[in-house]
Amino acid sequence: MKEQHISISVIKRLPRYYRFLGELKKQGFTRISSGELAGRMNLTASQIRQDLNCFRGFGQQGYGYNIEMLYDGIGEILGIDKPTSAIMLGVGKLGVVVAENMNFQKYGFNLVGAFDVDEEVIGKEVAGIKVLSLDELEAFCSEHKPKAAFMCVPSAAAPELSERLIGLGVTGFWNFSHYDIGIKHPEVSVENVHFGDTLMRLSYKVKNS
Amino acid sequence: MKEQHISISVIKRLPRYYRFLGELKKQGFTRISSGELAGRMNLTASQIRQDLNCFRGFGQQGYGYNIEMLYDGIGEILGIDKPTSAIMLGVGKLGVVVAENMNFQKYGFNLVGAFDVDEEVIGKEVAGIKVLSLDELEAFCSEHKPKAAFMCVPSAAAPELSERLIGLGVTGFWNFSHYDIGIKHPEVSVENVHFGDTLMRLSYKVKNS
Repeated sequence: MKEQHISISVIKRLPRYYRFLGELKKQGFTRISSGELAGRMNLTASQIRQDLNCFRGFGQQGYGYNIEMLYDGIGEILGIDKPTSAIMLGVGKLGVVVAENMNFQKYGFNLVGAFDVDEEVIGKEVAGIKVLSLDELEAFCSEHKPKAAFMCVPSAAAPELSERLIGLGVTGFWNFSHYDIGIKHPEVSVENVHFGDTLMRLSYKVKNS
Repeated sequence: MKEQHISISVIKRLPRYYRFLGELKKQGFTRISSGELAGRMNLTASQIRQDLNCFRGFGQQGYGYNIEMLYDGIGEILGIDKPTSAIMLGVGKLGVVVAENMNFQKYGFNLVGAFDVDEEVIGKEVAGIKVLSLDELEAFCSEHKPKAAFMCVPSAAAPELSERLIGLGVTGFWNFSHYDIGIKHPEVSVENVHFGDTLMRLSYKVKNS
């Protein structure tokens, strides 16, 4: 896929296209028009054509998009074909659920390590990986060079730990803690999963709809 | 707090203000200027003044905002002071972690019921609530009238179940499944927690930063 400029707002929407196209592929569809895809995704055909403008090689006027090529092309843009090495920090209840139930490969990551401070947890296996002590973080990172960290630690532990990880070469954070890593470090990439924030938005919507 | 028009983009940002102000309150601060708050939140003072324009009664030129009044005012807008009754659908591993570790009250909800189809799970307690069979959903809803549903079920179960819940008066969904409830039902409120989508965005960012 040729490098082309794609705006950040389109990038934000690509995972959703990717999911829908994956479903269509699984159901055996091979081509889809922008109008049909629009109906399924609750968008307009012109939005879709605009968003997928850079993939126009995969669409032919009147014939629709080739689903598999579009799916693979979006996957390539998102970097899913070249998984990023990641480590999990904090293997408490949330960490275990996430590690054991997410197919990281499917989303562009390889989980290569897991760390905790709790002696009860260290040495146990999670998703086929032995949980290491946080004391082993430096040695592990210098050997395996993970680029991403999944932060399943309490918010209080996040500031110091994120500093340490950035020092060890981590450039991307999947952040479940309520600490905003990006404020001190705008140079790193962060995706937050803030349960509380989404609940508060829902609270507003339910009361004002 | 008087009713005033607040744009949806400001609403989206309010939970983050609410979190920061809650922290400041906890640390014993009573007033903060837009400039100081901007520094802590990595925004500009003028963004903050624009966003919090409708709370201007709580700020005084040169004296900053009264933190407690601003915090309470935002909480009121978000409806946190008047909790919405909610039920959890699907009490598997994810459901248990969410139910037992989230302080729903803090985010505007009361968890009043939990449902599953698994005989192993039905009858057990989660977060102090006895898990009921999905067969009891109709009777429960007609008695307790929950307005929100936390969807921790597999995606395959989500389409039928969301139809059923909408028929029973549920108007808001906190959705962990990968099914897009809002497409068929634009009239209901949905907040999605799509782990996979956030991971794919992170994958893109890590590879393109």
